[in-house]
Amino acid sequence: MVRTGSPSAPAAGPTLAVVAREAGVSVPTASKVVNGREDVAPETRRRVTEALDRLGYVRRPRYDTARAPQLVDLVVHSLDTSWSGAVLRGVEQAAHDAGLDVVVSAGLARGRAGRPERGWLDKLTTRGSAGVLFNLAELTESQYAWLEHHRIPYVMIDPLVEPPPGVVSVGAANWQGGVTATEHLLALGHRRIGVVAGPRRTLCSGARIAGYLSALASAGLGHDPAYVRHAGFDEAAAHRRTHELLDLPEPPTALFVCSDRMALGVYEALADRGLGVPGDISVVGFDDLPEARWTAPPLTTVRQPLSEMAATALRLLVRMMDGDRPESTRTELSTRLVERSSTAPPRP
Amino acid sequence: MVRTGSPSAPAAGPTLAVVAREAGVSVPTASKVVNGREDVAPETRRRVTEALDRLGYVRRPRYDTARAPQLVDLVVHSLDTSWSGAVLRGVEQAAHDAGLDVVVSAGLARGRAGRPERGWLDKLTTRGSAGVLFNLAELTESQYAWLEHHRIPYVMIDPLVEPPPGVVSVGAANWQGGVTATEHLLALGHRRIGVVAGPRRTLCSGARIAGYLSALASAGLGHDPAYVRHAGFDEAAAHRRTHELLDLPEPPTALFVCSDRMALGVYEALADRGLGVPGDISVVGFDDLPEARWTAPPLTTVRQPLSEMAATALRLLVRMMDGDRPESTRTELSTRLVERSSTAPPRP
Repeated sequence: MVRTGSPSAPAAGPTLAVVAREAGVSVPTASKVVNGREDVAPETRRRVTEALDRLGYVRRPRYDTARAPQLVDLVVHSLDTSWSGAVLRGVEQAAHDAGLDVVVSAGLARGRAGRPERGWLDKLTTRGSAGVLFNLAELTESQYAWLEHHRIPYVMIDPLVEPPPGVVSVGAANWQGGVTATEHLLALGHRRIGVVAGPRRTLCSGARIAGYLSALASAGLGHDPAYVRHAGFDEAAAHRRTHELLDLPEPPTALFVCSDRMALGVYEALADRGLGVPGDISVVGFDDLPEARWTAPPLTTVRQPLSEMAATALRLLVRMMDGDRPESTRTELSTRLVERSSTAPPRP
Repeated sequence: MVRTGSPSAPAAGPTLAVVAREAGVSVPTASKVVNGREDVAPETRRRVTEALDRLGYVRRPRYDTARAPQLVDLVVHSLDTSWSGAVLRGVEQAAHDAGLDVVVSAGLARGRAGRPERGWLDKLTTRGSAGVLFNLAELTESQYAWLEHHRIPYVMIDPLVEPPPGVVSVGAANWQGGVTATEHLLALGHRRIGVVAGPRRTLCSGARIAGYLSALASAGLGHDPAYVRHAGFDEAAAHRRTHELLDLPEPPTALFVCSDRMALGVYEALADRGLGVPGDISVVGFDDLPEARWTAPPLTTVRQPLSEMAATALRLLVRMMDGDRPESTRTELSTRLVERSSTAPPRP
């Protein structure tokens, strides 16, 4: 048996008609053999298989519309992070359970600022995508209009900015997460709590800061805007903002950092100053990516259930594909504090 | 405009014929509107759009065989690791460049021991997969036969065990990586170098150990088999094997660990004993996953170019889909040492 595309296969692919002629059988008979049908006499099968091998026949893929699993698209911002890994895991498992296949593309990464590149949407229609999940996306008005126009159901997973009314999305309880992180630090005795926040206009960052402010207010504490610094979601920006916070006349004794990845930049900035975590300063992250366990000390963080959010989005999408409607356009899954070793009471 | 599947949409989907009747137009005209064609009078488009909205029409996906991008399958062992993230990133980028779409499934995870589940392969034919990439897979003889029988081109990325002759695969230069790691430790002055190796029968682990032995031999040093301990690729097993190595009468002063993920277990075992890295013992990992930067101290490791391996596999697959043949059935991409802070000369 020659393995497909092995070095002994010729460079050009003959048609099935050529194979059938070579084997002395009809094209439908040759087709039966290629498609693995059982109703072919063994001797005939042998002759066809030999001809296939001899001629190096390469099967042309054929889409069997009646039997093929439907395809749904997962469009991610970037495949560089374990964030997208967790999302993909949730989508893939839920899609498998629903008998769907998932086409993954980093279409957003090749557009600008979370927007899919031109031409990408056209692929959805030609391929007959049954639905789309957008992860960390920010669509333009015309892209929303295009999706509506083509009646392709879609769900946003953790949209970067507030989507238009009626758009279905799934996210984490970011406000509650901000409350939880801040209350944890308050309970340890911290009163000067800085925030290394995400980009100002993003939905998740805004909600987390609002939670921080609510927790301060509930504790009867005032708020100094200088303690909240906005960064991108990257380590380098978080590193800079941490230095700014440490340069304040009364620097914070604890930091709430809006992503685990940013916390790495925070740790580096603290190390620059010779400050120990949690002895000199406490740090709480957000996300609970696998990396949070690897840091020294392991990071106390607010866990958002990314895989579960992604699976929920897929299940909502399946209902919309069936013409059903979600009861609510926004689903939020709960966050919770995962205590590790990066927080302690402030120095007396 | 009602957004697809928004709360105002009814629960059942009407056919296009019903929509056409409601709008007082022909079915082909309604179809033109649904498919975004321009050759429809504005007033007609408006009537159809209103009927679509009123009836809550949900577009049924249609596969446009002539225009749709071909699909290739990426089948991974697990989506739990940043390993698979790096592979997916390489495949997705190269597929995009080739005008292909990628269907991702964790089919191997749901089978047993790296083998796709039953029924999974059938999906490939019904969907008309143009080709398959297997990541960290171990196929059975009958699965290989099935792929050959259906003439579906496939390439293995870092196969777990040696694939049958003729099967095309891409991997890292694991032997060279083992040499590099060991020579680095020898150059620092280490003579008792332990290995926390992967599973005995895996291709990559075997090659890395062979590289270790070659480097020892080149340095004129003997080899004590007790210094090589096989574990799974998980942290817990690596943790146990490290304790075994530390319990030797003459424990190693340096460890070569066959994956970064395992190195986390090694770090934990060393911390159990109060041993500092690299002061008391040096550690070299393998992979250079993003996590390697997060450990304390950051891990010196042998980098394998996972995304580049994956992209290479996709490009080989594309050639095979065109009936071409790779010149070689095994492609190995080079590994290199990434020096961080986990190695130092042994204590005098």
